[in-house]
Amino acid sequence: MSEQPRVEIYTKTDCPYCEKAKDLFDSKGVEYETYNVSDDDELFEEMVERADGRKTAPEVFIDDELIGGWDDTSALNETGELDEKLGIADESDGEIVEHRTMIIAGTGIAGLTAAIYAGRSNNEPLVIEGDEPGGQLTLTTDVANYPGFPDGIGGPELVNNMKEQATQFGAELKNGIIESIDDSSRPFRVELADGDVYTADAVIAASGASARTLGIPGEDELMGYGLSTCATCDGAFFRDEDMLVVGGGDAAMEEATFLTKFADTVYIAHRREEFRAEDYWVDRVHEKVEDGEIEIMKNTELTEIHGSQAEGVDHVTLVENDKGHPTDRLEDPETEEFEFDVGAVFFAIGHTPNTDYLADTGVEMDADGYLKTKGGEGGGQTETHVPGLFGAGDVVDYHYQQAVTAAGMGSKAALDADEYLEDLERADSSVEEVEPAAADD
Amino acid sequence: MSEQPRVEIYTKTDCPYCEKAKDLFDSKGVEYETYNVSDDDELFEEMVERADGRKTAPEVFIDDELIGGWDDTSALNETGELDEKLGIADESDGEIVEHRTMIIAGTGIAGLTAAIYAGRSNNEPLVIEGDEPGGQLTLTTDVANYPGFPDGIGGPELVNNMKEQATQFGAELKNGIIESIDDSSRPFRVELADGDVYTADAVIAASGASARTLGIPGEDELMGYGLSTCATCDGAFFRDEDMLVVGGGDAAMEEATFLTKFADTVYIAHRREEFRAEDYWVDRVHEKVEDGEIEIMKNTELTEIHGSQAEGVDHVTLVENDKGHPTDRLEDPETEEFEFDVGAVFFAIGHTPNTDYLADTGVEMDADGYLKTKGGEGGGQTETHVPGLFGAGDVVDYHYQQAVTAAGMGSKAALDADEYLEDLERADSSVEEVEPAAADD
Repeated sequence: MSEQPRVEIYTKTDCPYCEKAKDLFDSKGVEYETYNVSDDDELFEEMVERADGRKTAPEVFIDDELIGGWDDTSALNETGELDEKLGIADESDGEIVEHRTMIIAGTGIAGLTAAIYAGRSNNEPLVIEGDEPGGQLTLTTDVANYPGFPDGIGGPELVNNMKEQATQFGAELKNGIIESIDDSSRPFRVELADGDVYTADAVIAASGASARTLGIPGEDELMGYGLSTCATCDGAFFRDEDMLVVGGGDAAMEEATFLTKFADTVYIAHRREEFRAEDYWVDRVHEKVEDGEIEIMKNTELTEIHGSQAEGVDHVTLVENDKGHPTDRLEDPETEEFEFDVGAVFFAIGHTPNTDYLADTGVEMDADGYLKTKGGEGGGQTETHVPGLFGAGDVVDYHYQQAVTAAGMGSKAALDADEYLEDLERADSSVEEVEPAAADD
Repeated sequence: MSEQPRVEIYTKTDCPYCEKAKDLFDSKGVEYETYNVSDDDELFEEMVERADGRKTAPEVFIDDELIGGWDDTSALNETGELDEKLGIADESDGEIVEHRTMIIAGTGIAGLTAAIYAGRSNNEPLVIEGDEPGGQLTLTTDVANYPGFPDGIGGPELVNNMKEQATQFGAELKNGIIESIDDSSRPFRVELADGDVYTADAVIAASGASARTLGIPGEDELMGYGLSTCATCDGAFFRDEDMLVVGGGDAAMEEATFLTKFADTVYIAHRREEFRAEDYWVDRVHEKVEDGEIEIMKNTELTEIHGSQAEGVDHVTLVENDKGHPTDRLEDPETEEFEFDVGAVFFAIGHTPNTDYLADTGVEMDADGYLKTKGGEGGGQTETHVPGLFGAGDVVDYHYQQAVTAAGMGSKAALDADEYLEDLERADSSVEEVEPAAADD
């Protein structure tokens, strides 16, 4: 065995991003030590000290050098620098590593379902994990509405089940980030962030969406220091603090309910009068309101987060107007601005589709970057405007965004792609044999 | 306890329609005796004797009167006659039994997923089981491609899981067949075949599709006497016979593979050169061809089935033409007609959507009876042309027809219906309060 630098990971119990970090090093065959800071105040203090005041897990160190949390580690991995630090960088930059029949971008529910179906169609898909392996569902502790599991199932467990299922049918999962796709000729040229290049006859974009932020003052400075987009990851760090959840959909309700386990009081700031969340979650929140654990601030928006990386979040600035959307009514004399003390802030305000790597292709997107697909009835619903390039899951769906709808679309994409590939094969063989292709039914 | 007539059911091991029959009597709280004829030749002979020569299970008897198989029993149940024979008919014919917020037609994957989501939205759906409770998946012994179950899951088990999940969230399942829906005013009037009438604010049509037949001579006479649409139900009755499977899709390949367990040789007659089935199944079939257990008859169609109810299927008439679709080329001198000896015939030639009960509504259907829905992107994809009436699963989807695509659509239908119901509620309350409804986001 070659000598390897020392990798250390500070973790927490029930911390999906910690699992992602460990999965990443596992996938590289790199050994590491973990320190669980959940119930060990001394270890926690040591982590904060070594991590320059950051209080979020994971915190990753390579040979005593602070790499940072999951985002930092993942970003370093994208550029190939992580492999350099680990002494495992390869030298194949820019060279075509391999040709594959099918490449699938993303290992969330849509990508993995596409992989299961593509595997069964003998298309041996290469599935590129992206910067959030397992996708958004890995951040959900209990999935109650995925059909087939009457007792519910953990998000990571469901994802792992699907990974196992896809692998069994011949899918290959690969850690990496797709940097760009070149559709100017066939096969597609798929370039990864670490410089590796693959070619593929068909590509399924199932790269999902990422948590949205507000772009307000204090946000960049305090992200990871009291501001978070993942309650299940970071909630436990702010035990007995007052916490603010921003949002009004399912995710906001679920996160607020979850945070009552740790918080003194959880406040929900929502810019409108009515929540968009399903009744189930609204009911759960109202129960917590009756118990005095949650307070709802309607028609209220967050405009600034105050604090420091050393001390975390100190307080926030909020605006309120009974007509809703108060930041659109800052000139309205009835809009009230006030300061509010909280020790942590969680954003649950939706997602942005991960479609940057498709920018140079001919795919059409809407103003928010969601992929446009053919839709309609019959076959080919997941076709984009580029033949051979298909879209599935939250990268397309800006409305339903359920695990089971993503799975349904993943299945359709693999079936559509298989038809495309069979047409391609038939066209190729008819050229060779100078015979017409068999008429389809 | 009131006196109840004696109900007897002859069953087989691994016989989905036997389970349906038992479920039906269970749902009525009626006790019955079962006789498993699988490994008991004497019992089997007794069944054939009592059932006037029929060799399919189940066979149902009430007070020694032959009711017949599942189809007969179900048909009798539809008209209310079964309840009369059982002495449990109610007297509420034509009266409105109850008003419900939401009624879902069908308890297949689409209907049950809609029920899970509708339950979580507090819409307390009433789910009408229809004449094939559990839907087509109950006829599949092993579902390998439903995402989340790496070891596969039995069709009936997956359906039962979803029933349990739906019930937990407040859905109510009711045995019955919807005869017609009146959409001329609101609420919808939903009339069942037994005469009961329900009203509902929203309806989700998830009534699936039923096995198609060819309409050829011998078909009506021999259905249940050697001709079947369900290999897993009836295959074991024709042990060591030569069997013919008609079709070229996934179902035909799966059934042919399954039937090799019992048959001397399984023949597949397919009207084209190429199978439509996924590669996985085509490969399985080709392995069996190499083993000498399956023979493929391409470009071949079935035109007549010969036999009698007493003796079962004796032989069939087939036509063959290398150009495919031989029945379209009967005048072609190269079309060859020949007799072929087989002891059983299985149809696996697709399905017809169950939409008859919607005939008097304003929904639009295609030429085959599939429901047209809005589709496209964003919300409302499952809307039909009748506001408040939504479609999901195989009643809409004539192309993909997967368990997971049906589930995805069921989820969408429940979410679409919930939005419709909330708009309705908001409109109602704004009329009452003479106040404008809150603007939506």
